[in-house]
Amino acid sequence: MQNLTINAGRLWDSIHETARFGACDGGGVDRLTLTDEDKRVRDWFCDTVEALGCTVTVDEVGNMFAHRPGKRDDLDPIAIGSHLDTQPTGGKFDGILGVLAGIEILRTLDEAGYITNAPLEIVNWTNEEGTRFSPAMLCSGVFAGVFPPDYAWSRTDRDGIRFDDALDRIGYRGTEKAGGHRLGAMFELHIEQGPILEAENCTIGVVTGVQGARWYDVRLAGSTGHTGATPMRLRRDALVGASELVLAVQRIAQDHGPEAVASVGRIDVAPNSRNVVPGEVSLSVDLRHPDDATLARMAESFEAELGRIADHHGLERDLTPVWDSPAVRFAPELIARVEAGAEQAGLRHRRLVSGAGHDAAYIARVTPTTMVFVPCLGGVSHNVAESTTLDECRAGAQTLLNAVIAHDNSLID
Amino acid sequence: MQNLTINAGRLWDSIHETARFGACDGGGVDRLTLTDEDKRVRDWFCDTVEALGCTVTVDEVGNMFAHRPGKRDDLDPIAIGSHLDTQPTGGKFDGILGVLAGIEILRTLDEAGYITNAPLEIVNWTNEEGTRFSPAMLCSGVFAGVFPPDYAWSRTDRDGIRFDDALDRIGYRGTEKAGGHRLGAMFELHIEQGPILEAENCTIGVVTGVQGARWYDVRLAGSTGHTGATPMRLRRDALVGASELVLAVQRIAQDHGPEAVASVGRIDVAPNSRNVVPGEVSLSVDLRHPDDATLARMAESFEAELGRIADHHGLERDLTPVWDSPAVRFAPELIARVEAGAEQAGLRHRRLVSGAGHDAAYIARVTPTTMVFVPCLGGVSHNVAESTTLDECRAGAQTLLNAVIAHDNSLID
Repeated sequence: MQNLTINAGRLWDSIHETARFGACDGGGVDRLTLTDEDKRVRDWFCDTVEALGCTVTVDEVGNMFAHRPGKRDDLDPIAIGSHLDTQPTGGKFDGILGVLAGIEILRTLDEAGYITNAPLEIVNWTNEEGTRFSPAMLCSGVFAGVFPPDYAWSRTDRDGIRFDDALDRIGYRGTEKAGGHRLGAMFELHIEQGPILEAENCTIGVVTGVQGARWYDVRLAGSTGHTGATPMRLRRDALVGASELVLAVQRIAQDHGPEAVASVGRIDVAPNSRNVVPGEVSLSVDLRHPDDATLARMAESFEAELGRIADHHGLERDLTPVWDSPAVRFAPELIARVEAGAEQAGLRHRRLVSGAGHDAAYIARVTPTTMVFVPCLGGVSHNVAESTTLDECRAGAQTLLNAVIAHDNSLID
Repeated sequence: MQNLTINAGRLWDSIHETARFGACDGGGVDRLTLTDEDKRVRDWFCDTVEALGCTVTVDEVGNMFAHRPGKRDDLDPIAIGSHLDTQPTGGKFDGILGVLAGIEILRTLDEAGYITNAPLEIVNWTNEEGTRFSPAMLCSGVFAGVFPPDYAWSRTDRDGIRFDDALDRIGYRGTEKAGGHRLGAMFELHIEQGPILEAENCTIGVVTGVQGARWYDVRLAGSTGHTGATPMRLRRDALVGASELVLAVQRIAQDHGPEAVASVGRIDVAPNSRNVVPGEVSLSVDLRHPDDATLARMAESFEAELGRIADHHGLERDLTPVWDSPAVRFAPELIARVEAGAEQAGLRHRRLVSGAGHDAAYIARVTPTTMVFVPCLGGVSHNVAESTTLDECRAGAQTLLNAVIAHDNSLID
């Protein structure tokens, strides 16, 4: 096998070139889905891949597929992809790194005159972030049959603008039926958005799946009262109950092993006044685990703790499940290719489970799929301070290239 | 001694007559200090007490004194007073009940042709609520020498209007020096603003003092992170620390006996997002106890707990003391008069310490002072739903009358 080596400087340049589309203060990027900035980066994508000899297909929800023919067009294409949209105060790497690494792989192959057995495709999935049009990972979800296209088209932003109108406006409603596109495998390179790789001094995360997650809204209601005039024994303090619940959620994570995470991210107190005993608290609970059975036990413990705490303090309680996302396990043969690819490149690597959701989590339902993570400084993302080094980008793209080539070779073994 | 009996219907009528000044939806009153509505109730007060033969004096910060001569003008006047201002969504009883009960006492004495030994004075203290011009109890504070008059005059409301300009505008800046007014004693009747009397089925609270209070602002800062991608062991979750602090504050109250109260009323989380580990929490802490030494020990425990919790979770902490109000003990001889007065009226009573601040707490620094409490439904105040019955108003005014007459008689024993 040839020694194919990524040109990290060229990849780095394309990262900075595309960061102009929606550039915002502090070095970040504000490129919400289906805006003028999104159109500009999509146009750039088309121009760039067409210059590399690819053909671009766009499906009915705006997902884009740049096709590079292989030696055997009877083989299903191997896809490399992620998303080009960002959060309102996003960074230069989240999403687009996985697309640009795909383009860099095409350039490396072109330079070497290398033709894969299967066709290669570089994919941009529409509206991964879900900030402008909720929910997140909308159009990889449509591709995977999780949502019907009508559902995506009818989503509206805060100004009441429909997804389909926004898609038409920028000229990216294609004719191909979503999900009608053949894919034999999908590889997604992404920044970790967490601190594990950095903490363990690894450059490559070999991602074995995506955690299952359950989200809840909780409301606890007691009685307000004057903080000076209401004796402790006559109080029904909703914040005291909420505080016990926050700590119970912590304990539930600790009780279910190092892979469990559980969080209260949002808490709103009423009336939230210095000298009034809190009468009502609303809060969000987020439970995650890579194993669905364990996650179900965590959810059971949480519901039991909520009941116990509310009863103990005489609080009313409402529990509303808002999201239930089963765990995803990526394709073992592709995971092994990524691991071997990192090894081949001499990179420190470890297996991990993605804590965040990704397009790959939906695509895995319909196509063998896996992911590669590279570190981001301090685990920070969705922030203009998001930072990944040139060497880390090189490492991710090289691992991806090694994995794709090895997988492609395996198709004709 | 004559059998002097309050006319509860007449008192009730005056409560409803004055509730027109600033009447708001739901049966409440919005009568912020030094507004047109405050001028209207002050004018009503002047007209009413002058019709009863009183002379009104106004001091330089707008405190009003209605003087009814006694048999012996060498004796210092006995004052009965409270405040006529309300919260923006106040009730019909908070403050004004203590002034109107004084007027009802004058009417009862007039009908009986009863002349006290010492002069009687009915007092309206300016700006007890502190909502428009902070701090609360501003002008009883000036009277007691806690604040200089310049301090009061220079306070500004949210629109930048100065206190002295507002006072001039409604024509209630008097010429008498604040604190220059002779007073021999002060009795303040007020609604409890807490649930103790109702819970113990008592009609009269014999108030022995006002709790000491210490208020703090606390800021805890950790690190934000993705709730899915940040393992528990790598978190510095500010809300977890804050929740432990809320529970520590509870325990501190429980550890210092039934009279201790301690509360976290306000909590603000940043970024307060469902899928972000909380990076920063600001919260308020309110510690109160009738005994200053005990309160100091509570404050010590609180500071130690804050340090321990912040260190344990690796959180930065800022602690800002915002208020330190020493405990007040009312005059024992006046407390005994109130107790005897309730007994004489055949009313269930109990001693208690005020949890809330009152004008009487400042006046007690310069004049023998005490208070009488009557229940309010569910302990609710600062709310349009504030409710006290005709019988409870009767009980409070009768107890006050009995106590004042007994005290007056004691002056010439």
